Amino acid sequence: MTTLWEYRYAQRTQRMGSSAIRELLKYTEKPDIISFAGGLPAPDVFPVQEFSEACERVLREQGAKALQYSTTEGYLPLREMIARHTARYGIKITPDNILITSGSQQALDLLGKILINRGDRILVESPTYLAALQAWRVYGADFVAVPIDEDGMQTDLLEDALRTGPKFIYALPNFQNPSGATLSLERRHRLIEMADHYGVPIVEDDPYGQLRYEGDHLPSLVVLESQLRDNGGPCYRGNVIYLSTFSKTLAPGLRLGWVIAPPEVIRKLVEAKQAEDLHTSTFTQMVAYEVSRGGFLDRHTRLIRKVYGERRNVMLVAMDRFFPPEVDWTHPKGGLFLWGTMPEYLDAADVLEHAVARHKVAFVPGEPFHPLGGGKNTMRLNFSNASPDKIEEGIYRLGEVIREKIGRKVAV
Amino acid sequence: MTTLWEYRYAQRTQRMGSSAIRELLKYTEKPDIISFAGGLPAPDVFPVQEFSEACERVLREQGAKALQYSTTEGYLPLREMIARHTARYGIKITPDNILITSGSQQALDLLGKILINRGDRILVESPTYLAALQAWRVYGADFVAVPIDEDGMQTDLLEDALRTGPKFIYALPNFQNPSGATLSLERRHRLIEMADHYGVPIVEDDPYGQLRYEGDHLPSLVVLESQLRDNGGPCYRGNVIYLSTFSKTLAPGLRLGWVIAPPEVIRKLVEAKQAEDLHTSTFTQMVAYEVSRGGFLDRHTRLIRKVYGERRNVMLVAMDRFFPPEVDWTHPKGGLFLWGTMPEYLDAADVLEHAVARHKVAFVPGEPFHPLGGGKNTMRLNFSNASPDKIEEGIYRLGEVIREKIGRKVAV
Repeated sequence: MTTLWEYRYAQRTQRMGSSAIRELLKYTEKPDIISFAGGLPAPDVFPVQEFSEACERVLREQGAKALQYSTTEGYLPLREMIARHTARYGIKITPDNILITSGSQQALDLLGKILINRGDRILVESPTYLAALQAWRVYGADFVAVPIDEDGMQTDLLEDALRTGPKFIYALPNFQNPSGATLSLERRHRLIEMADHYGVPIVEDDPYGQLRYEGDHLPSLVVLESQLRDNGGPCYRGNVIYLSTFSKTLAPGLRLGWVIAPPEVIRKLVEAKQAEDLHTSTFTQMVAYEVSRGGFLDRHTRLIRKVYGERRNVMLVAMDRFFPPEVDWTHPKGGLFLWGTMPEYLDAADVLEHAVARHKVAFVPGEPFHPLGGGKNTMRLNFSNASPDKIEEGIYRLGEVIREKIGRKVAV
Repeated sequence: MTTLWEYRYAQRTQRMGSSAIRELLKYTEKPDIISFAGGLPAPDVFPVQEFSEACERVLREQGAKALQYSTTEGYLPLREMIARHTARYGIKITPDNILITSGSQQALDLLGKILINRGDRILVESPTYLAALQAWRVYGADFVAVPIDEDGMQTDLLEDALRTGPKFIYALPNFQNPSGATLSLERRHRLIEMADHYGVPIVEDDPYGQLRYEGDHLPSLVVLESQLRDNGGPCYRGNVIYLSTFSKTLAPGLRLGWVIAPPEVIRKLVEAKQAEDLHTSTFTQMVAYEVSRGGFLDRHTRLIRKVYGERRNVMLVAMDRFFPPEVDWTHPKGGLFLWGTMPEYLDAADVLEHAVARHKVAFVPGEPFHPLGGGKNTMRLNFSNASPDKIEEGIYRLGEVIREKIGRKVAV
């Protein structure tokens, strides 16, 4: 049935297109599929009991407030907690530097809304987080891309990209989605210096920073920028906007993220958020605060690091054992994802079809993560969601699929 | 401190501007102010105990699911419940016609995102819901306005507006925010016929439809459209998109609304929502479903109708008693708002300043609700939030303020 709406879509709807990853998540709903496709946390580590107690307490003590409208900026005690947490890493901010968003995804959307004019170039890593590309394409963004290796964005290739005049740089320095790569300390300094030299600000996306399984914590870009040119102390300088989330430490089903930015940018983001959803759920903000406080979030994050670190190790050992020598993969120091590279003559979409249909195992083909195309032979594997025995079995199956595909190709 | 962001805002940020109403809400936080400014439900009717029990049950029985990522479309049992509820009013839809949004505000934003090109004209009532104007201005909308009276949009003035070629019509037929006006049955038919004649689709916004305190329920536009031209039964025809919310019946702090639209429009909205916030909180959706089912929502809505109906009556009686004869006001049959019109020589912003500073009472000036300006002498009064004795006292104070202002003017 055709309705009058059909002929009335805006130009920007042409730039949408349903997320390939979200379509793929449908596979994961079938119980017989072993899925490495999503970016789902392990449900078995959700602190369900603590949430239950927090809900009871919030509703008993402040029920009328928790269920009422609230300010767009977000629940003040939660913003104060984030400010205190940020201070640990050597940078002083106040709640005026913080906006609570409906997941980190909304922060990406709001930044696109207040910053991007049609045809603006955004400098991104390649590959990079797919949903950022999707959020910003809606506003007419074009992309200039700097390739990454195991040490993150290849900063020796940065200058040419900066000279195209990008509006801002989008960087995921820790255990990047999709590749799992971490930007080395040397390259962090180089990135900050080059961005400063060309006067280009940075959006730093850090959903996984707390989930490191080996090596030492590296200072974030927002901290390094505060130290640039003897800034006179640990003050927030403001040219790096920092995004993070409770989705990977507490629970993604809450949809709670935050932005750290200069107060004038926060004000613009607040105006945009007012018109977009008024504010993020008062109730989930108060419950998240109640669950997190008193050191619980730190203790719980330690548990998550232990569980995910083990799963990463299981996946790496299984890949060593079951994957053919023609495949390379990254060794991420944290986060949720591994990145595999198959021989160039293999198409990951084709491998996926075979993997799901015949071997009941799923992953995400790497091509959509490449802002300018390419990467047809790459794949993203999630190691946080499946249990260790499923990971082993799934990697075994996937090894078989790739062997079959290589064998067929070699036979031809 | 100036940062690099300052010179990089998008054109659309010029069209934002913080909501006057939300700035005013700051007044309401001072405990000594009697505020008729917000659109806040009465916190004393929030079903806090039922929420507490629902949270406990959802987390105990389905904790891992409630805290995990979920589909963009929304929690299926909640969408099924909305479909059943809609069927009562004589129109058949399926969950494929429904998208759960982060409050009704997000539905307005998403419709703007998928439909509005810069310079598109949207046909609106004058005055109309301010936050819809704000959401759509971001996308470059212009407005053509049809004035309302106590029977809603003046449909005898509709044809000229339709001939300007608007992309769609935005209508609030029940107890409109801000005026409290209700579109008469005759005008509902006329609106549907004219829209059909000119081939212009309608967005029907109905946050207050369940909150009627006198008179009979009138069929919504979406129902009337399904009966147009002997459609062959109670099928959804699709040219009217219908919005509603749990904010006025359950609790606004959840941020839960919904859209009813043709499946192809829902698909576009889903794509836009994926890029905007992935999905609305799984947990709040499951809790809202758990609270509502088994007839609770109907019983609770009856209680709200009783409480708000009484408050409306208290306000009307107090206005009769305390307001000077130079002021007119509406007699809304439901909803949350009354609309006052002062003599043309008074400026409501000026009256408000005086009211807050000297008499500790607040309301919202009517001018921002007028898409093309005007209405400087009008005011919106909320009667749902304050207790009956506060309403009486506040109206007394406001009457004094207006008398003083009129007296001064007359003295000059």
